[in-house]
Amino acid sequence: MTGATLLTIAAPDAATATGGPGYAVADFAAPQVRITDLAVTRGDGVFETIAVIDGRPQSLGPHLIRLAHSAALLDLPAPAERRWHEAVLAGVADYRERNGAERELYAKLIYTRGVEGEGRPSGWVLVDRGEDFTQQRLGIRVVTLDRGLRHDVAETSPWLLAGAKTLSYAVNRAAQREAVRRGADDAIFLSSDGYALEGPTSNLLLLTGGAVVTPQTDQGILAGTTQAAAFAFFEERGQKTEYRRISVKELFAADALWLVSSVRQAAPITQINGKKYPVDAVLTANLNKYLLERTY
Amino acid sequence: MTGATLLTIAAPDAATATGGPGYAVADFAAPQVRITDLAVTRGDGVFETIAVIDGRPQSLGPHLIRLAHSAALLDLPAPAERRWHEAVLAGVADYRERNGAERELYAKLIYTRGVEGEGRPSGWVLVDRGEDFTQQRLGIRVVTLDRGLRHDVAETSPWLLAGAKTLSYAVNRAAQREAVRRGADDAIFLSSDGYALEGPTSNLLLLTGGAVVTPQTDQGILAGTTQAAAFAFFEERGQKTEYRRISVKELFAADALWLVSSVRQAAPITQINGKKYPVDAVLTANLNKYLLERTY
Repeated sequence: MTGATLLTIAAPDAATATGGPGYAVADFAAPQVRITDLAVTRGDGVFETIAVIDGRPQSLGPHLIRLAHSAALLDLPAPAERRWHEAVLAGVADYRERNGAERELYAKLIYTRGVEGEGRPSGWVLVDRGEDFTQQRLGIRVVTLDRGLRHDVAETSPWLLAGAKTLSYAVNRAAQREAVRRGADDAIFLSSDGYALEGPTSNLLLLTGGAVVTPQTDQGILAGTTQAAAFAFFEERGQKTEYRRISVKELFAADALWLVSSVRQAAPITQINGKKYPVDAVLTANLNKYLLERTY
Repeated sequence: MTGATLLTIAAPDAATATGGPGYAVADFAAPQVRITDLAVTRGDGVFETIAVIDGRPQSLGPHLIRLAHSAALLDLPAPAERRWHEAVLAGVADYRERNGAERELYAKLIYTRGVEGEGRPSGWVLVDRGEDFTQQRLGIRVVTLDRGLRHDVAETSPWLLAGAKTLSYAVNRAAQREAVRRGADDAIFLSSDGYALEGPTSNLLLLTGGAVVTPQTDQGILAGTTQAAAFAFFEERGQKTEYRRISVKELFAADALWLVSSVRQAAPITQINGKKYPVDAVLTANLNKYLLERTY
């Protein structure tokens, strides 16, 4: 049988396994989630999406660290890193055994508060073939959209969960639909006080003032695993990199821009709100080659 | 067998049934949701919770109208009102047949974008016994929490989905945990520009300047079905009612306050951020009696 692999994590917050593996293969085609799981009724959980290239889950350690960080922001029990790690590897092996060696897959980790009233979290790992992003790796058009929040809300109002990768992503999806409605492919969120933040499912990189810059993550945005790898790429080439605030003015004045994320990797921006930006096709191709060939 | 009733809605957006009922009884104890349903992975759907008193779903029409309104804000297909209506009645009947005639139940309607890639929405109706809110109907302590958004974002930034009752409720849950952390029972959200908005799962009523007032709903907040019924209660008693903006200053200066919602009904506020407010116990008891005895 071909198709996606789904694993159920037996006790996703248990620090030590109590004999046997911490996961079980589930039937992907069958329902596996109860209607009263708080993931369904409240979007009350966290997730990670990890690129799997030639069988290697990329930046697995940083993704598991971010899963734990998101869980902490939601007051969820700390996920058992080792169980999740083993389950991802097992899921990838199972998928490849049944489907053959496809170059690009993804692993999605879903960690929820569990069935209401039971007080036990739920966990799943899904491994499947991703969308084909070849075209988006050559260029995307974006629009800027207000995220409604000041840049400092993660500090002033932590209950808004800015910077947590939660299952409550309806707004991120609505922003992407709005971008399409405006004739674009994706969006860049702006803070209500005028800073460029991130995409709904990606981080922003800019070439500006001779440096490669990304908005610093104390602004209620996700620390990007692919952004970190892209910084390594530029640093190896002697390019200066920086984390700092980016005003809207600086965003529009950038020399080049990319949205980077785990599965799509680096997508160069050709237009913001209709204004054109040049794409260095060779540099971007080298960046994506580097990102796809990462072995860590 | 006793316990909750779960119905699957066959085609929750189909205007006309194609023979037979539009719902089927499902096994509540078994998983019914696929891991790739966008409700699970993105909180991408909408819901309603309806009080069922002595077998009567309260304000069923207004709840179905609000479900359709939320769906429209998320660009979901319009829900088939008649199917949902019939399913709620059938679910209540099934529950009462198996469990006997309990006074207070609730019906939860869950309408999602469906399994990713299939392009068909999912729908469920769950009927179960609710929490016992007797104590909260006598008094609750609340804290004010910043919702981070200006009062006018529903107009300026509709992709933020303010005013839609979505399955992406992780922030609402986090706000309630923050309230408990501060020694309170519930929260009142404030806009970033200083207006009182609503509770995470309730509407706010204030007695101020001789009128019963609720924040007007063009501020990205839900139009409350119980709030509407409470206004009817006060109007029948010759009390003036108003929808308008409420500044934080006016909130704190109110003569009396309630949070109202479908299942808890009216909960009088005894404290805001530690400051005490008087509760008119007789008036509140009469209000709850009226709300519980509604036959529409």
